[in-house]
Amino acid sequence: MEVSKILHMNSGVGDKSYAKNSLLQRKAMSKAWPIIKEAIEDYLCTENTPITTLSIADLGCSSGPNTLSILSDLITQFHKIIQLHHNKPIQYQIFFNDLPSNDFNFLFRSLSKFLEDLKNQIGTDFGTCFFNGVPGSFYGRLFPNKSLHFVHSSYTLHWLSKVSEGMEMVNKGNIFINRTSPKNVIEGYYKQFQKDFSLFLKCRGEEIVSGGRMVVTILGRTDESPPNDDFCYTLTLLNLAINNMVKEGMIREEKVDRFNVPNFMPSSEEVKTEVLKEGSFIVNRVEVARIDWNSYNDEFNQSNVFVDSSYCYAKCIRSVFEPLMIPHFGEAIVEELFHKFGKIVKDEMSKKQCQETNITISLTKK
Amino acid sequence: MEVSKILHMNSGVGDKSYAKNSLLQRKAMSKAWPIIKEAIEDYLCTENTPITTLSIADLGCSSGPNTLSILSDLITQFHKIIQLHHNKPIQYQIFFNDLPSNDFNFLFRSLSKFLEDLKNQIGTDFGTCFFNGVPGSFYGRLFPNKSLHFVHSSYTLHWLSKVSEGMEMVNKGNIFINRTSPKNVIEGYYKQFQKDFSLFLKCRGEEIVSGGRMVVTILGRTDESPPNDDFCYTLTLLNLAINNMVKEGMIREEKVDRFNVPNFMPSSEEVKTEVLKEGSFIVNRVEVARIDWNSYNDEFNQSNVFVDSSYCYAKCIRSVFEPLMIPHFGEAIVEELFHKFGKIVKDEMSKKQCQETNITISLTKK
Repeated sequence: MEVSKILHMNSGVGDKSYAKNSLLQRKAMSKAWPIIKEAIEDYLCTENTPITTLSIADLGCSSGPNTLSILSDLITQFHKIIQLHHNKPIQYQIFFNDLPSNDFNFLFRSLSKFLEDLKNQIGTDFGTCFFNGVPGSFYGRLFPNKSLHFVHSSYTLHWLSKVSEGMEMVNKGNIFINRTSPKNVIEGYYKQFQKDFSLFLKCRGEEIVSGGRMVVTILGRTDESPPNDDFCYTLTLLNLAINNMVKEGMIREEKVDRFNVPNFMPSSEEVKTEVLKEGSFIVNRVEVARIDWNSYNDEFNQSNVFVDSSYCYAKCIRSVFEPLMIPHFGEAIVEELFHKFGKIVKDEMSKKQCQETNITISLTKK
Repeated sequence: MEVSKILHMNSGVGDKSYAKNSLLQRKAMSKAWPIIKEAIEDYLCTENTPITTLSIADLGCSSGPNTLSILSDLITQFHKIIQLHHNKPIQYQIFFNDLPSNDFNFLFRSLSKFLEDLKNQIGTDFGTCFFNGVPGSFYGRLFPNKSLHFVHSSYTLHWLSKVSEGMEMVNKGNIFINRTSPKNVIEGYYKQFQKDFSLFLKCRGEEIVSGGRMVVTILGRTDESPPNDDFCYTLTLLNLAINNMVKEGMIREEKVDRFNVPNFMPSSEEVKTEVLKEGSFIVNRVEVARIDWNSYNDEFNQSNVFVDSSYCYAKCIRSVFEPLMIPHFGEAIVEELFHKFGKIVKDEMSKKQCQETNITISLTKK
């Protein structure tokens, strides 16, 4: 599977699109916000040379409302601190990065309205924004040496560049690490994560100026060792739905054996270890947060209408995984698959509190 | 008419797409190539500080094969001279600019193959390429101060930002400057060109480093004064096709009176005057070239099959003007309109030699 060619969230703005189903990812960003805010403040307070142009990159930006919402927050915060310390409007060079399969057209066509809204919010004199789309994998160089001041990335680094070789037909009956997965499957996944994350750090280490900041939020897991049975509870449930379809003869068993989701959810220790080992960055903070799947009826739902969180959660997962599954399993099965998955999610959520684990790490380039 | 929201070439790779019908624009680029080549050589020979990163922008890049073909030529030429003088691979930061309505997705998805081909041609050690898409109008700032070394733009600056105000219902029976156009219509168009081109120069003057180069090729007209009757022969013929449809009752006359193509084809003197007046650039060279419409059976047609040049030319014009005309005249008339236009073009080309005038101007930032 060539992940970099296939991977993208469901495009457009339709009912099944990522744009319409990414509230959970927004919640994850809001949990990480105090850490991002702190990094911005620290950066601007320790920076001695006067800043004229700030280069900010969002890696794996996608093209939904979250892309612009985090950018608006970032610029607003930078502007606030710059006003306090320097009192001179600056130039913001914004780099939106994602794989070439991302819907950059949609993103680019939203920018004029975005800028208008931003000016209404923080005033027209905040500075100038220059927008750039950067197509390519962040597991490789994307920018010239020492050209970035601030890098943000959220819910992206649990995507591996590939499933490590020799995994096909080994992880029988599973699409991801599961309680029946052999030990070498878990090891293979972990090694690939180490390789990918280390390369990511090396590349960013070359691209970020000395003293520059990077804050990444990764979908991770708790620090329990050995890992609890459900390495990723969502994928365990998706696996269950797939296996139900195998039993019903709708998916061939061999198809499942050949498919492995290119994800790895690291623990905070695993993340930290890799950063220290690679050596380009100083670790300022590592924070673990838990996000409830049942979060569609809180402050993020502004409509005041009760929504079925399990239904929303299942749709969110569909918008993320569907483009990856269609090339392997075929389009015909996805409707039924995600219908089954939705029912399983509803059932699970009625029985227990289901949560994601987020790891946010704040780094300074040495 | 909000040009920046409507204007784009016919997208995709279908029979009517710009990508499939832009051989003439490629021919224009090939005529300009010796001037571009000279500018690259001059720039690298006069540059005293060692170059580590070269920022190159293609303004109004579109998303067809010409976009990548000119870029390949540019990098190859830079590489050749750098090898001669510096002998050290450098970083190329490439900025593709066009309006947000351009098909950036298509362009971004071609880049991996492009890079592979480029490496096969000039060797893997030529340096590193970083690609950026920059959505926005070049009649405004697009890049931070002093951030570009080399700017290229071809067949773009005859597109005005808008038709100047007060033109509606004045240019009766015409969609562009025609022999029956009142004097104030020609003046209005010229003033808009002066305003737009001057703003373009001012913005690029702020963005290009001192000593940096810019080569632009503009669809223009000869220096005859007063201008000959056919300000733009192509649009005169398109006007004829439209008026035939008015006579046949297929288009309402009032629709024609309300529509003015946002183009202006300047003379080389008009271009030069504006550059000198604006003052950011030194003029190195201004060259005028003539491109025959009947050019589809020369070195650019590699298939060795005779093609009907008039048919190809009409399709080329359709791929450019269709997206602009549909919102005003409606989709229903375009098939018949361009059928009629094709017949008129064929007839004209059988009677006389039809040509475009290209103006290429090579500039150095003061």
